[in-house]
Amino acid sequence: MHAYIETQQDRFIDELAALCAIPSVAAEGQGIDEAAQWVAARLAALGATVEVIPTGGSPVVYAEHGPADAARTLLIYNHYDVQPATPLELWESPPFTLTRRDGNLHARGVADNKANLLSRLHAVELLQATQGQLPLRLRWIIEGEEEIGSPGLTTFAEQYGSRWADSDGCLWEAGYKDAQGRMTLYSGMKGIAYFELRVRGICLDSHSSNATLLPNAAWRLVWALSTIKDASEQICIDGFMDHVVAPGEAELRYLAEISYDDEAIREANGIEAFVAGVSGQAALRRHLYQPTCTICGLESGYMGEGVKTVLPSSALAKLDFRLVPDLTPELVHELLRAHLDRRGFGDIEIVRLAGEHPAVGQVESEVVRAALASAQHVTGIEPVFWPRMAATGPMYPLTAPFGIPTVGFGVGYHLSGTHAPNEHIRLLDYLEGIEMAATFFTAFGAA
Amino acid sequence: MHAYIETQQDRFIDELAALCAIPSVAAEGQGIDEAAQWVAARLAALGATVEVIPTGGSPVVYAEHGPADAARTLLIYNHYDVQPATPLELWESPPFTLTRRDGNLHARGVADNKANLLSRLHAVELLQATQGQLPLRLRWIIEGEEEIGSPGLTTFAEQYGSRWADSDGCLWEAGYKDAQGRMTLYSGMKGIAYFELRVRGICLDSHSSNATLLPNAAWRLVWALSTIKDASEQICIDGFMDHVVAPGEAELRYLAEISYDDEAIREANGIEAFVAGVSGQAALRRHLYQPTCTICGLESGYMGEGVKTVLPSSALAKLDFRLVPDLTPELVHELLRAHLDRRGFGDIEIVRLAGEHPAVGQVESEVVRAALASAQHVTGIEPVFWPRMAATGPMYPLTAPFGIPTVGFGVGYHLSGTHAPNEHIRLLDYLEGIEMAATFFTAFGAA
Repeated sequence: MHAYIETQQDRFIDELAALCAIPSVAAEGQGIDEAAQWVAARLAALGATVEVIPTGGSPVVYAEHGPADAARTLLIYNHYDVQPATPLELWESPPFTLTRRDGNLHARGVADNKANLLSRLHAVELLQATQGQLPLRLRWIIEGEEEIGSPGLTTFAEQYGSRWADSDGCLWEAGYKDAQGRMTLYSGMKGIAYFELRVRGICLDSHSSNATLLPNAAWRLVWALSTIKDASEQICIDGFMDHVVAPGEAELRYLAEISYDDEAIREANGIEAFVAGVSGQAALRRHLYQPTCTICGLESGYMGEGVKTVLPSSALAKLDFRLVPDLTPELVHELLRAHLDRRGFGDIEIVRLAGEHPAVGQVESEVVRAALASAQHVTGIEPVFWPRMAATGPMYPLTAPFGIPTVGFGVGYHLSGTHAPNEHIRLLDYLEGIEMAATFFTAFGAA
Repeated sequence: MHAYIETQQDRFIDELAALCAIPSVAAEGQGIDEAAQWVAARLAALGATVEVIPTGGSPVVYAEHGPADAARTLLIYNHYDVQPATPLELWESPPFTLTRRDGNLHARGVADNKANLLSRLHAVELLQATQGQLPLRLRWIIEGEEEIGSPGLTTFAEQYGSRWADSDGCLWEAGYKDAQGRMTLYSGMKGIAYFELRVRGICLDSHSSNATLLPNAAWRLVWALSTIKDASEQICIDGFMDHVVAPGEAELRYLAEISYDDEAIREANGIEAFVAGVSGQAALRRHLYQPTCTICGLESGYMGEGVKTVLPSSALAKLDFRLVPDLTPELVHELLRAHLDRRGFGDIEIVRLAGEHPAVGQVESEVVRAALASAQHVTGIEPVFWPRMAATGPMYPLTAPFGIPTVGFGVGYHLSGTHAPNEHIRLLDYLEGIEMAATFFTAFGAA
């Protein structure tokens, strides 16, 4: 393996550069078809049967290859879209030119998650070159709207899910090494429910001297919000917390293995204490097993320079709930509506902007065991396993209806700066990532 | 009087056009010196001793004329600055070209308050032409920053107040006729305290998945605001309401004379009910005798299109209190600070952006009696007297320290649209306003 990777590494990096040169920013609709075609062609070159399947938005590249009679089938989820590159002025090299600097490879989307995707394609090439054929059957779902919340993927899974329903496991898109150099793996993700609350008061803004008599949309928004979460950080929506499932024993055992540097996180954020005063393992447990309710935005009236004595006619808030099992976007919408109605806020409109179900992690599964063993073998360092990620992705629609256990790993590290300017990976992590994927394919195929 | 007005009216309107042609928008710093010089020259032409007194901002035109041995001295407050003309596209004629249409005179600032000022200057000319001399001594304070909250006038009054301290009464800047054609007079105004609340949380915006642990500035702002006023519209700042003085008997008698079309106000604002469910006289009493606390603006995080999963590091609110005696801007600042500190919101910064003291109305005073009698005489219709205005102006610093009773009237009407596009007055009200001022000068001079 090492020999092959060594002889091919310049071409591997050239291919990564070619993929990163496509500015496939889903939010801006650029380079989407080009990236989909590039990925489809690369898969076809590896002998896969490939389809570029239209959805309402960016197409999904669906592909299969490997022996039809293989003992095991692995579903692989990745995405070819990336975050916008702004703010451009903070980049030290052009974001869509893969730039090698100090042993690192810089580009928008290289860590999230073009290098992950390509490391798996290169692992397939490696296995085909060195073993003659793949040790398992692979199915690929490579979408182009992950960075905007995968709006089409639930429908896609409903339409095409029978193609991969009997997969034995799923490899999720990305992962990183922590500050101690340990590969970090995970299974399970939080869901999300994202709403805009809209308050309409008087029909046009008025002069603030009329506040004796005219209702103020901004005040109504404040009052409604203050019933949703209280100053002790308790979410107060009637019935909401009843749907939160506590972690199981196996999950708690893995949790205890994670060294969680909570002091470093506080320092990086310039705060003295976490909310609710938690720290250490309690903080980690809260982070993974508690839902959130976040005001992402507030807007009302006049916020320019100085004084404007206006009584606002409308007020808006964006509200993001991170969901743990058994909370779902539909349930949260329903509970929030009933909660506001019950408190006299029936006039406040709730607009659903995004929703993803949480995905339960399958801690005790072959796919997790094979990935952990592979990581130990390839890196020589015991990996860390997170029984759940605090982040959100379309894991639920692709795997949960079919009971496919999932594991995630990738080629980033803790300073990769996904979504930030100067996003990068380490070159050596990339090469090791190819070996990791090949080793995992082999281990899971034989399991 | 009528004969003189009739022969001079074309020139009067030409002069009004000349004054309205100066775009003296205080907020934009345009035409300020030009307007001050125009007003000073017009006063000088009437034989006044005039000074253009620099302040930190727009200069104040201070003038005196009339017999030094007159029995009575009247202070007259007006302003030569105007609101911005935006939105320009809604004007049916150029805002700084006085345009006659359907018996009305349209221009930015014509109602607020260039025509009021000029009607008083024309009344002086009228009295000098027909009586030979003024029936009282007049002192003029004509400022240029009323529309931005008169920031320099308290200091101005402290420096120069001795010049007008012994005035017997004060005529305030503006007034209007109501829908029944009754001239509306008033004495006393509300004050204002305008703050910005600033919440800082984490040092940079974070990803909303971190909301399990990182404090959210927007939530802190919501929680702090929700302690300031509750959903029943009660201001809950500790000790705040203790400083609210109930109206006296004389005030309530005048109040009962006001026909207050609360249904029309609700309809114009598209609402079913006023706050706290008040209507009729109770609404009017609340409007004039209760303080307010208004959120004029809210801002935090992301409020663009769609979804951004951000945990905001800062949140801002603009908060406008309308003050009744004995609340002052300083007192409100102090009470709010203590209130927030006591509830654990000591980290929330309170920035004072503007403040004006409320001015107590002198319901039983010669200046009010003379104005009411003059209005009845000139219009032939019994005027309405508001013992207090809900609006705010620099009445307190100019009159209260010297105990000068104040009355206000002017040449606008209920549809003048002050501050709005197509601001206008009726030509006949203007001509009648000259007669009103002259009659009032004579009546108060003889009182």
